[in-house]
Amino acid sequence: MNLTPETEELVRVGGDHVRALLARVEERLRVSAVGHGEALARHAGDTIAAGGKRLRPLLVVLAAGESSDERVAAAVVRAAAAVELVHSATLVHDDVLDGADLRRGRPTVVALAGREMATAAGDVLFSRAFAELAQAGGAASIRALSDACSALARGELLQRADAWDPAVTVERYLLRCELKTASLFHAACELGLLASHRPPGELGDFGRRIGLAFQMLDDILDVSGPASSTGKHRGTDLLDGTVTLPFIRAREHDGHLAALDPRSVTGPAEAEQVCERIAATGALEEVRALALDHVAAAKAGLAETIEPRRREALELVADGVVSRYS
Amino acid sequence: MNLTPETEELVRVGGDHVRALLARVEERLRVSAVGHGEALARHAGDTIAAGGKRLRPLLVVLAAGESSDERVAAAVVRAAAAVELVHSATLVHDDVLDGADLRRGRPTVVALAGREMATAAGDVLFSRAFAELAQAGGAASIRALSDACSALARGELLQRADAWDPAVTVERYLLRCELKTASLFHAACELGLLASHRPPGELGDFGRRIGLAFQMLDDILDVSGPASSTGKHRGTDLLDGTVTLPFIRAREHDGHLAALDPRSVTGPAEAEQVCERIAATGALEEVRALALDHVAAAKAGLAETIEPRRREALELVADGVVSRYS
Repeated sequence: MNLTPETEELVRVGGDHVRALLARVEERLRVSAVGHGEALARHAGDTIAAGGKRLRPLLVVLAAGESSDERVAAAVVRAAAAVELVHSATLVHDDVLDGADLRRGRPTVVALAGREMATAAGDVLFSRAFAELAQAGGAASIRALSDACSALARGELLQRADAWDPAVTVERYLLRCELKTASLFHAACELGLLASHRPPGELGDFGRRIGLAFQMLDDILDVSGPASSTGKHRGTDLLDGTVTLPFIRAREHDGHLAALDPRSVTGPAEAEQVCERIAATGALEEVRALALDHVAAAKAGLAETIEPRRREALELVADGVVSRYS
Repeated sequence: MNLTPETEELVRVGGDHVRALLARVEERLRVSAVGHGEALARHAGDTIAAGGKRLRPLLVVLAAGESSDERVAAAVVRAAAAVELVHSATLVHDDVLDGADLRRGRPTVVALAGREMATAAGDVLFSRAFAELAQAGGAASIRALSDACSALARGELLQRADAWDPAVTVERYLLRCELKTASLFHAACELGLLASHRPPGELGDFGRRIGLAFQMLDDILDVSGPASSTGKHRGTDLLDGTVTLPFIRAREHDGHLAALDPRSVTGPAEAEQVCERIAATGALEEVRALALDHVAAAKAGLAETIEPRRREALELVADGVVSRYS
């Protein structure tokens, strides 16, 4: 298992059980795509292997906490794998709709094998997620994951419906973040708690708020760059027609931006200029402050009953969402 | 609930509990798409409402048999709704890939609202299926439905991979039928038995064989027509590049057909001529005989323990698959 330095630190704080569980999640992810035809298994498997930060499985594991009961551990591992499978499925389907060539620096399934393969691979990943969860989770878990799936689909749709519309409101932006990002972070925490039979409210609004902050800070990064650390051009959202909070806020401060039709921004150089202009308004600091509020509230909402070590690891995840962007 | 005359007869034989359960399935289907955003709910809902024969939910209900236990009845209803939701999800995604305008005589979601909406609507229908099932089914049910989902995706992919290839073998054709049709019929029976706590082997290979026969007879109908009863031109499969068993068999008898490149068939009139030629070889009777064998084996495989009324209804479903094409 290749962990990012960030995750390494988390695992160190979280303890050996976190490391052991994450390794088991990787193994579940590896085998979950096998047995559904060679081509599908390869493409679904490659998507999962391409990885990412495994932030959602980590949330499941940390939400669950340590347990000496192997049945609990197995349920936590399955739940964590299920959440990552759903995340992968939505990425594959998004890439089909966008006709995207690259994801995390690797060719997408749709680029490698076409829309048919990618649509099918996404469907298989969805169904594998529920199969994983069914092995260990009860009805409440499956309901929670299914609700998150619906929210993700709805969020993706909202983003596309609002594309190129500069009149997108803050409320609408926040609803989109809730649906397309916070819902699965929230489900990850819920599933972890359910798998380990912990009180459902123990983490408060932790997952949802971390998810909101994550999305906001991602949207800041798209404007602030640098490209060297994000792996994509500044202003990619602008060029995609995705109106994010930094742009919405900046328009309130800068008449030129307020009059700007997003469709008129047609190339990376122009997008970079608009990004500079957004940054100059102070909008990035405003959005960052809002995101930090969510992180602080997420941490403050953790129940008193949470063990110190588990709390420390959860707080580190929350801080990690921020530090990634500092 | 508007039942086809065929289903009416089945319900009459099956008894009042079948009618009552099917009505409850319709109600579950109606509410399942609600609450995920207005547009999504409308499109997902319309897809479900457009209906069809409800053959798969009917199989769940008949496989389950009658029960005086309301918990069993509720589980059967949820399982039946879940199977139909999966079926609807795959149709919506297939229509996206085909860019299809019409389905069951109504505009498709992709035609009405675009690829984004249709992809999201399909994803929501998939996730709703598992949410329904989770309310009442155990891990075995969810695993069975998930396996069927994977098989459907794999079957769809196989069909597209084999498109326009006249060298498709009988074995490959049968594998495709297993995956894209028989798997969900099989799961329907499995889910019905699981929901009512009946022995897993009680229906033998009933669902799988009925599904195979259903697909074969559908493929015959595409060649034999008449368009007035199928609602589509003869030879639609040919024009789509889908090489079916009637064509494969006919090529063994007719040198002209053996030499025919499917890509050279470019219009309905030409497709109709090829259909005539396929029919003239006797291939349709051969395939029909094979389908009837599967129907007979399906009926013969029903366990001795099955109650007479339930057996009669199941046999009627099996015969209905055939009579639709006589």
